[in-house]
Amino acid sequence: MGEPALRVALLGCGVVGTEVARLLTTQADDLAARVGRPLELAGIAVRRPGRPRPDLPVDPALFTDDATGLVEREDVDLVVEVIGGIEPARSLVLAAMAGGASVVSANKALLAEDGATLFAAAEKHGVDLYYEAAVAGAIPILRPMRESLAGDRVRRVLGIVNGTTNYVLTKMDETGAGFGEALEEAQALGYAEADPTADVEGFDAAAKAAILAGLAFHTRVTAMDVHREGITEVSAADVASARAMGSVVKLLAICELSEDGQSVGARVHPAMIPRSHPLASVRDAFNAVFVDAEAAGELMFYGRGAGGAPTASAVLGDLVAVARHRVGGGRGPGESSYADLLVRPMGETVTRYHVSLDVADRAGVLAAVAQVFAEHGVSIDTVRQRPLGDGDDAELVVVTHRATDAALQATVEGLRGLDAVQGVTSVMRVEGE
Amino acid sequence: MGEPALRVALLGCGVVGTEVARLLTTQADDLAARVGRPLELAGIAVRRPGRPRPDLPVDPALFTDDATGLVEREDVDLVVEVIGGIEPARSLVLAAMAGGASVVSANKALLAEDGATLFAAAEKHGVDLYYEAAVAGAIPILRPMRESLAGDRVRRVLGIVNGTTNYVLTKMDETGAGFGEALEEAQALGYAEADPTADVEGFDAAAKAAILAGLAFHTRVTAMDVHREGITEVSAADVASARAMGSVVKLLAICELSEDGQSVGARVHPAMIPRSHPLASVRDAFNAVFVDAEAAGELMFYGRGAGGAPTASAVLGDLVAVARHRVGGGRGPGESSYADLLVRPMGETVTRYHVSLDVADRAGVLAAVAQVFAEHGVSIDTVRQRPLGDGDDAELVVVTHRATDAALQATVEGLRGLDAVQGVTSVMRVEGE
Repeated sequence: MGEPALRVALLGCGVVGTEVARLLTTQADDLAARVGRPLELAGIAVRRPGRPRPDLPVDPALFTDDATGLVEREDVDLVVEVIGGIEPARSLVLAAMAGGASVVSANKALLAEDGATLFAAAEKHGVDLYYEAAVAGAIPILRPMRESLAGDRVRRVLGIVNGTTNYVLTKMDETGAGFGEALEEAQALGYAEADPTADVEGFDAAAKAAILAGLAFHTRVTAMDVHREGITEVSAADVASARAMGSVVKLLAICELSEDGQSVGARVHPAMIPRSHPLASVRDAFNAVFVDAEAAGELMFYGRGAGGAPTASAVLGDLVAVARHRVGGGRGPGESSYADLLVRPMGETVTRYHVSLDVADRAGVLAAVAQVFAEHGVSIDTVRQRPLGDGDDAELVVVTHRATDAALQATVEGLRGLDAVQGVTSVMRVEGE
Repeated sequence: MGEPALRVALLGCGVVGTEVARLLTTQADDLAARVGRPLELAGIAVRRPGRPRPDLPVDPALFTDDATGLVEREDVDLVVEVIGGIEPARSLVLAAMAGGASVVSANKALLAEDGATLFAAAEKHGVDLYYEAAVAGAIPILRPMRESLAGDRVRRVLGIVNGTTNYVLTKMDETGAGFGEALEEAQALGYAEADPTADVEGFDAAAKAAILAGLAFHTRVTAMDVHREGITEVSAADVASARAMGSVVKLLAICELSEDGQSVGARVHPAMIPRSHPLASVRDAFNAVFVDAEAAGELMFYGRGAGGAPTASAVLGDLVAVARHRVGGGRGPGESSYADLLVRPMGETVTRYHVSLDVADRAGVLAAVAQVFAEHGVSIDTVRQRPLGDGDDAELVVVTHRATDAALQATVEGLRGLDAVQGVTSVMRVEGE
């Protein structure tokens, strides 16, 4: 080729960074042919540069602990950020762009918290900021959303975007295990971290929901805007109840346009979806994103949402794209937030509830329960009643029609106050119908 | 905005063209915001400009029967070609590019037959040629393949890319109907054309397979290179036999790299795939493309493969992309054929066969049958034998291990010559395991 190489600085060399460095080395010829110029590692910023890395076929002299010095080097054209977290990642990415480098990041937390600052910097310095790997790992979802659907109107996005929780929920569904037991299994197999908070409490999924909602609706959405409930309260009984309805419990990231098109909502919570829904068959640690757009109709994107190699695949796809812009001119699409729609609070979101009640098995109870729903303007879709084994109690399972979350919440509060209701044993939203 | 509009010439105003024109009009504000400049229809080339089109909210003066004159107009920046077929589409697209316009085409036949000429012209004139709508309608598959997976190594693509045949095969599976009956139902419901040849004989899928293989393997592949078998010979017995194995029959477009990475194959034929495979649950007229890449692992893209609005969604996504290049500079990726791998003939393709035989129910028959497989070096995975209701015959179902298609074909010929074999009742390839 004879063209001078484009120089790549890699920030972070954990599971993903190692794969990025490995692929940059082993696939160098293919990457050069696809970009039009070779890609060459300029340096790798890590905490401990001297640590032996026998599996990684790169020059040990490339490692440095001076990340700031690396991104500010004049010979760096492209920066890959796979450190994660807010700082120092943000400062490094901003310094890289200020120095004229295009950036590829896998950092969902940073993009979801402070994307606007980063996009503004990219715009100001005339560089690219790509981040396909930040959502759903290897699955191409941000580029399709940002480019393929750029001529369409997205109405709704339903995503299974966290592999750990999907693994846990799959095991609960398959074996009848409780949350704790399924989580332990996931930890033993490496599907959950020792501190699983970010995953099981829905923080990871909420960051991804914010990114997806921003792209889908051309509106700034941050992680703070996303209503978030994790899966720690999902019980074996909830899962069994879903099964009895022909449904399955999934942790969903839901981004949706209101019916009048004037506001958007973004939320993460467990929900029951029918087994016939394409997302229901997404099992174990796999991810999938279901998109409903006005002209395109229903689309689904499925694949591996995490792991070194899959995430590196997404990083390298972006790297080739931004490198091509260096070679051929132009830039990819920047932030698109022109629609600037209102992000509505959860209480105004319209959804359906599945409520299980432990009630006294006597005449008039159903009437009293139905009265509470009616008082809050919530209409009932189905009621299923069955005696419980232990004497005078019965189980009442109510699935509502669509109503605002505030009305549904108030209804549940009202039910808790009824004399005839021993307890509200399960409350879960119903989606995907 | 105040910027002058980009002028769009639309060639063809059938089902897809009508939707493109409608969306350009009704979504004009959104499109302008996303592109950075308004998009404006410069003209619509049709056969009968005077025909009333009450559903289409555009100025009747835009219609013309002079397509050549339209694409050569100096005020045309972008050309959308949704005429289909080879000529006059090719000449018009070439004239448009020669005049400096970027082109968005939905024309799978043209791309698969003569893509190289078109890409060369785009390169020569420094314009974009985008064609997402040519494969799998609304499903973003070409952009992910061409851009998202640009840093990865695709090993295999398995696609259900023809909605008509998938509808027919779904009905055969659901109802036990034969091919003819299921096709008639599809025709009655508008899922199949009066002359269904292009669909049921696999020509449509073969064009798409050529396009997918070219992108996946960075190698020129034309429709002529694709081994093609349609579904007209698929019988109710084949479908029942698949069902008995826990499988389902699908018309697959298969593009694969050989194990040594030195050659590629592209083929379209019916095949049995296990019901547990993600493609098995793609029903009715839906399409899906399953991709196996080295780093990304398994990906699947699912959605509507045809229809006016879904196809228009893909066209408009491309239109926004090429329009952004007009506004911001740069071009999208051109043809990538640097790998220039050998396209191997079908006989060298490695696959598995499912063979059903009607045999005499007597000692020694299985040995004779097994001997024929052994002579051709084909190893048997499973054999299932059951007496047929009508006396002295038995059905023998053999599923092979992987072998070259040539060896498998020769084996089937050998079986036909055996005295003990009354008939070979079904031969079908087995994929997706």
